[in-house]
Amino acid sequence: AGVDKGVDFANYFCTYAYLYHQKEMLCDRVRMDAYYNAVFRNKHHFRNKVVLDVGTGSGILAIWSAQAGARKVYAVEATKMAEHARELAKANGVDDVVEVIEGSMEEVTLPEKVDVIISEWMGYFLLRESMFDSVICARDRWLRPDGAMYPSHARMWVAPIRSGLGDQKIDDFEREMNEWHNFVDETEAHYGVNMNALTKAYRAEHEKYYLKTSMWSNVHPNQIVGTAAVIKEIDCLTATVDEIRSVMAQVTMPIIMDRARVSAFAGWFDVHFRGSTQNPAMHEIELTTAPSEDFGTHWGQQVFLLHPPIRANEGDKIIMSFTMSRSKENHRLMNVEFTCELEQSSGKRLSPVTSKVFIE
Amino acid sequence: AGVDKGVDFANYFCTYAYLYHQKEMLCDRVRMDAYYNAVFRNKHHFRNKVVLDVGTGSGILAIWSAQAGARKVYAVEATKMAEHARELAKANGVDDVVEVIEGSMEEVTLPEKVDVIISEWMGYFLLRESMFDSVICARDRWLRPDGAMYPSHARMWVAPIRSGLGDQKIDDFEREMNEWHNFVDETEAHYGVNMNALTKAYRAEHEKYYLKTSMWSNVHPNQIVGTAAVIKEIDCLTATVDEIRSVMAQVTMPIIMDRARVSAFAGWFDVHFRGSTQNPAMHEIELTTAPSEDFGTHWGQQVFLLHPPIRANEGDKIIMSFTMSRSKENHRLMNVEFTCELEQSSGKRLSPVTSKVFIE
Ligand SMILES: Nc1ncnc2c1ncn2[C@@H]1O[C@H](CSCC[C@H](N)C(=O)O)[C@@H](O)[C@H]1O
Ligand SMILES: Nc1ncnc2c1ncn2[C@@H]1O[C@H](CSCC[C@H](N)C(=O)O)[C@@H](O)[C@H]1O
Repeated sequence: AGVDKGVDFANYFCTYAYLYHQKEMLCDRVRMDAYYNAVFRNKHHFRNKVVLDVGTGSGILAIWSAQAGARKVYAVEATKMAEHARELAKANGVDDVVEVIEGSMEEVTLPEKVDVIISEWMGYFLLRESMFDSVICARDRWLRPDGAMYPSHARMWVAPIRSGLGDQKIDDFEREMNEWHNFVDETEAHYGVNMNALTKAYRAEHEKYYLKTSMWSNVHPNQIVGTAAVIKEIDCLTATVDEIRSVMAQVTMPIIMDRARVSAFAGWFDVHFRGSTQNPAMHEIELTTAPSEDFGTHWGQQVFLLHPPIRANEGDKIIMSFTMSRSKENHRLMNVEFTCELEQSSGKRLSPVTSKVFIE
Repeated sequence: AGVDKGVDFANYFCTYAYLYHQKEMLCDRVRMDAYYNAVFRNKHHFRNKVVLDVGTGSGILAIWSAQAGARKVYAVEATKMAEHARELAKANGVDDVVEVIEGSMEEVTLPEKVDVIISEWMGYFLLRESMFDSVICARDRWLRPDGAMYPSHARMWVAPIRSGLGDQKIDDFEREMNEWHNFVDETEAHYGVNMNALTKAYRAEHEKYYLKTSMWSNVHPNQIVGTAAVIKEIDCLTATVDEIRSVMAQVTMPIIMDRARVSAFAGWFDVHFRGSTQNPAMHEIELTTAPSEDFGTHWGQQVFLLHPPIRANEGDKIIMSFTMSRSKENHRLMNVEFTCELEQSSGKRLSPVTSKVFIE
């Protein structure tokens, strides 16, 4: 709807056509263990069942589903990676079960309905890439009424953090601006053109890049200075595109550290594999991308800078209202806006601070 | 013709919409000096004339044309950068002369024909980006029969070089492949899937990336081990798209150094500002991107690796046949194929070596 397919391919799908990128995901042990255990510790969901893998990539989830006993697995992939998935299924002796279909999920036709939809659709901060739309579309068209979603639930989290990233980015930004001013001087001196009229636009461009774009980061648990809060819960069996198109929440996060300098928020997600209500998982599996010393994922966390930082103490609370919506230019990217108010333990509230951040 | 505009924007134009990228070009002193001198040392070509700037970007060439006395300058730019060009013209007091038109050159209509077309259309190794197509289109539609092209001529050069880049890339490639083999072992051990079926494809993907893609490099003059040769000459006043769609040449390059290890070829270009035959430049200006210790440009040189390297001595000759054509998937990228034969001073010819390289 309104999305140019060719442009979407150039901006989005193209990277998935590289084995290099697929390998990055296949090397993420936290991700791999979660899906592996979700499948093999819940074989009753797969044995003799019909499975649909939305966005099969290298084919890994489809092959596992077959190994766990599926009668048939439809493995749909939009990019040329489909050919590799087909090869891999064959080399692993499951090509009688796994049928790889090259095409976009929205457009392919399956010969039958399915019992399970499995998919690894999560982007940075869960919803970047908007791939869950395709899973919803697949579910509404192809999942049997009593079918199960793998994963079945997803949540988005935020927490206040301390971080040196903000100061570093301000330094980078200021260095850029200094260079710009030199450039303006030199261009005037050597080439007789005054570029100063563009200074404002140059600043805006670089403010956006350095200070208003969220950053990938592997946050250390000890950077978290307040209790994390859930800002979105998704039931994969019932969610609609309307429900995920934007995320709005108001949350309160108690500060858990004295003399904390809150210079950013971290955002992450988790998903759960619980099967369905009629047919629950025997072993519920969680995949979390929360800050962790030992179990980092390729998703890391997204960091949203706060300018200026807020000074807070144990007993204070941060009251945040958070809005995320899709970028008008590219529905797979996100615009975030949040407002923070510090409520001190005395009950006094500091004036709210608002930030706009792009997830690019 | 067969090019999806939205895709072309996503792949190509989008970067030019950033001031950051325009600034990079505006900071290239060799480039700037050449165009500046071409205009201001040939004011007779601009005074009271009508000028068209194809792809005005920040507007710099249009503003110079106005400052040199043009009666009217049409400054066409496909991206939103057009707005900044308009501001800049205004801030420099030439907005009565410079008319910025936002649109693609192929689609805009001018109210009159022009005396001069000025444009900075050169990509890596001259033709990457295929932007000269747009200049040809502008010329055929809008240049008066006695008009002049700025620049008026262009040439492509190649030379045999010695370089550590090839060894480095082979190391990178081999490290990647070792990692892949570990990955295959681990995936089998932990997750019961044998990925070996993809090893060949992974190798091909990485061979392309590390060994078969040309590299930007700032070649030092002392790396050049043979006499450079021209493989293409373009007369900007008469060239057709058919003439530049592919480049084919057979050249002989004498080796000028003993015990030279030819591990790559460097490719670069130069352009000249000579005006037209009826109306020649008073001061002919050259812009060269040849290897130079002191006058590097943002174009650098493109390096095409040769595997395995060729050992040669002074008096030997390299006979090269060279073909460059456009990539089928993206007409702005290039596929290069070359065959080299070493003719030793004795007259003996070694067996030819062929390489395919992508300019991405
Ligand atoms: N609408 C759609 N139709 C088909 N494939 C899609 C799609 N949207 C995304 N994809 C594909 O979904 C994959 C997501 S990455 C996950 C790959 C694989 N399932 C794994 O877990 O390792 C990518 O390969 C992408 O090309
Ligand atoms: N067909 C076309 N129509 C309009 N603009 C084009 C074009 N092809 C390329 N361009 C623009 O041409 C510019 C080339 S870069 C050169 C910018 C400027 N003339 C300078 O010398 O600094 C880019 O801004 C690009 O967006």
